[in-house]
Amino acid sequence: MEVLTLKNIEKDTLLIVEMLKEEKYQEINDMLTGKRPYDLASLFQSIPDKHRAAMLEHLDEAVIASMITRFNHMNQLELLGKVGPVRANKILSLLDTDVLSSLLRHFPKTDLDRFLSEMNEEKARYLQEMISYPPNTAGSMMTDRYLSVHLHDTVAEAVEKAKVHAVYSETLFLIYVLDETGKLAGTVSYRDLVIAEGNEIIENIMFRQVLSVSPNTKKTEIHRLLQKYDFSAIPVADAENRLLGVIAFDDMMQLVIQETNEDIGKLAAVDKEIDFDTKPAIAAKRRLPWLIILLFIGLVSGNIISAFEETLEQAVALAFFMPLIAGMTGNTGTQSLAVVVRGLSEQDIDGKTIIKLILRECKVSLLIGLVCGGMIFLIAFIWQGNMYLGIVVGSSLFLTLILGTLAGTIVPLILDKFNFDPAVASGPLITTVNDIFSLSCTFPSRLSS
Amino acid sequence: MEVLTLKNIEKDTLLIVEMLKEEKYQEINDMLTGKRPYDLASLFQSIPDKHRAAMLEHLDEAVIASMITRFNHMNQLELLGKVGPVRANKILSLLDTDVLSSLLRHFPKTDLDRFLSEMNEEKARYLQEMISYPPNTAGSMMTDRYLSVHLHDTVAEAVEKAKVHAVYSETLFLIYVLDETGKLAGTVSYRDLVIAEGNEIIENIMFRQVLSVSPNTKKTEIHRLLQKYDFSAIPVADAENRLLGVIAFDDMMQLVIQETNEDIGKLAAVDKEIDFDTKPAIAAKRRLPWLIILLFIGLVSGNIISAFEETLEQAVALAFFMPLIAGMTGNTGTQSLAVVVRGLSEQDIDGKTIIKLILRECKVSLLIGLVCGGMIFLIAFIWQGNMYLGIVVGSSLFLTLILGTLAGTIVPLILDKFNFDPAVASGPLITTVNDIFSLSCTFPSRLSS
Repeated sequence: MEVLTLKNIEKDTLLIVEMLKEEKYQEINDMLTGKRPYDLASLFQSIPDKHRAAMLEHLDEAVIASMITRFNHMNQLELLGKVGPVRANKILSLLDTDVLSSLLRHFPKTDLDRFLSEMNEEKARYLQEMISYPPNTAGSMMTDRYLSVHLHDTVAEAVEKAKVHAVYSETLFLIYVLDETGKLAGTVSYRDLVIAEGNEIIENIMFRQVLSVSPNTKKTEIHRLLQKYDFSAIPVADAENRLLGVIAFDDMMQLVIQETNEDIGKLAAVDKEIDFDTKPAIAAKRRLPWLIILLFIGLVSGNIISAFEETLEQAVALAFFMPLIAGMTGNTGTQSLAVVVRGLSEQDIDGKTIIKLILRECKVSLLIGLVCGGMIFLIAFIWQGNMYLGIVVGSSLFLTLILGTLAGTIVPLILDKFNFDPAVASGPLITTVNDIFSLSCTFPSRLSS
Repeated sequence: MEVLTLKNIEKDTLLIVEMLKEEKYQEINDMLTGKRPYDLASLFQSIPDKHRAAMLEHLDEAVIASMITRFNHMNQLELLGKVGPVRANKILSLLDTDVLSSLLRHFPKTDLDRFLSEMNEEKARYLQEMISYPPNTAGSMMTDRYLSVHLHDTVAEAVEKAKVHAVYSETLFLIYVLDETGKLAGTVSYRDLVIAEGNEIIENIMFRQVLSVSPNTKKTEIHRLLQKYDFSAIPVADAENRLLGVIAFDDMMQLVIQETNEDIGKLAAVDKEIDFDTKPAIAAKRRLPWLIILLFIGLVSGNIISAFEETLEQAVALAFFMPLIAGMTGNTGTQSLAVVVRGLSEQDIDGKTIIKLILRECKVSLLIGLVCGGMIFLIAFIWQGNMYLGIVVGSSLFLTLILGTLAGTIVPLILDKFNFDPAVASGPLITTVNDIFSLSCTFPSRLSS
């Protein structure tokens, strides 16, 4: 009921432009305070360029801080540049460590050092540590705004701590329990505190089976965990199980969405993030490497055909079916690939499962090969009136469908086995490799020539 | 630190088999109580068949209820059949409404009626209502285990309610605030209750900008919302904004994972769910319809080639490059498709964005076409020593890359415009359609013949 639809945005945009003209800046801030980051960002982007500078000049820093969490790094840096160093510092100080650290990575070294030197020493050290972890790891996305209590605290004492540190735990639903040596021993939820009696000892009500990850744990690994378990947050701890930070719920949700989107991108051979705002030259540059690799792999198929030039000259009709056979092999390979990549992201698999899966795909490919091969035999026979052509084309399709299906199954399994991301075996790659398979099968007639 | 790795499962499996042999059933239940559903399900599936019946006979119903939340419906029904009606009823009564209602959909009508008639009337009515909503809607996945308080309650009164109804709010972090007429007015978190003073009125501390969805809201729509906003739960309300239920955090996470996996499946032309356990015949049956459609579309490409039979006979070398050109067109189309499908799932777009996107892809395709077309011109020229062939092949690739890129961009946009799921424009479909484009461009020489 409170979501901004496109219509609402238009209405709000007009309203704000009106207010800007009348210089009612306080009213704009009142209207925007409390709105959700995504809505603020959409609204800001919908304001015509000529009014945006005036708007930016008068927006509360808190509104800007909320809004830019939904910007990409380039736009974040651009905006901070526009508001000047004093306001930029204010805005940055309002950001949570997970957002801030990922932005600071893009700062020039001197700016970064100056910014860190001006802030609270403890916080600066924390941010520096976060930046020291690679951007695709747990350490880079954790927050220090968590609340911890001690094993032997009473519920009443924990409530007192929660009241004092209320501002530090905005996005977390859990409180972390540490033992005497500072190690993570369990969690209690705020709900537990509400329900329990005040003199109860935390140790007796805490949840002990807490899963933590190391700061070096990769995002893909966390994504895998989230598919299996319903975590609302994940604590990040060092080798001695001392709590370093917490990955909050919203970051986890973003991670799941990002990772699956990345999978889609990889499967389609667009590795790096390209969104609607990416500039043409950059989008082309990011897409070309794969296309060029695929072009050279594709040349192999040309070579195969040229080796059978004579056959082709004798039976040009064979060429009619070449793209179809190549295409079908790519299609079945892509289907298998999707099933395997999806499955691998959802569960760990052992040798038994792998063998079962390969056997299953063998049977699937036999069935698919028989149906499609049979159909194309009939079509080729009826169309060209040539039984021999029908047999060559039908049996080629039968064979290549089996090979294509198995390639789509086995390639991602091998990649996963060697700890590569199976989604790297993109549809286009499988399709191109399968082109080569299919052409190697389309010319069995050479044997008889 | 508490995750089951494959090795751990093996160890635990051996341990349980040992205990089963020694009939230490209580110890097995003690060992399994408190383990996570996914781990329980993995463990159970790893027990050898001959021991599984004995294990099932002695497992606590609570353990089974936790375990089967991670089974698919077929396995859930199979297991319930094995434990007999009395224990099955006990297990079902322990399930949350979101899991239970989706299982009950698969019950034969008579079994469903008998089961509902035996249970608490209010709960039976709730379940029946849930089942009446289509399985891909908010109404089918909500839970009734939420806690609500009144606008004018004090914090102390709300705490009292939370204590009394503690068991009803296990998976939710929020409490829903209703006004005098029973309409949803806001939310408070348990954290708010911990931090606030006891005599504070709920109305003064509640969060008012609550977003609710209708029970008929589709899962894809919810997925879209979750990509924009960081919700930990979504209330489901009727047209008068009366609360019907809540979609809990774990179900939302599952929804996000499911929806993106479905997108991957659709993009690879495997519409219906196929997982590692799907039987070969069923997997083949689910994959064949698309393959057969693609086969017939592919025949068009054969027709185009046959129309140029003469050209091909004169210049067989043209055939060497046919699969490569067709393949490359499919590849660039798939890349564009992935960018657009991803983008559409992340944001609403208006006419201006669409035009900007199409223009961007035009420029991208020009760049890609120039680079790849230029490369293949050089390759064809050097390899076959035929400048004319190089020009034909290079300009064909240039042209088809542009067409292919635009097809991959525009087709999903059109589908989205007409409220079809843009992911239906699968990679294989775009590839096959692009085959036809590419072949129509490879034979411009006809004009000169």
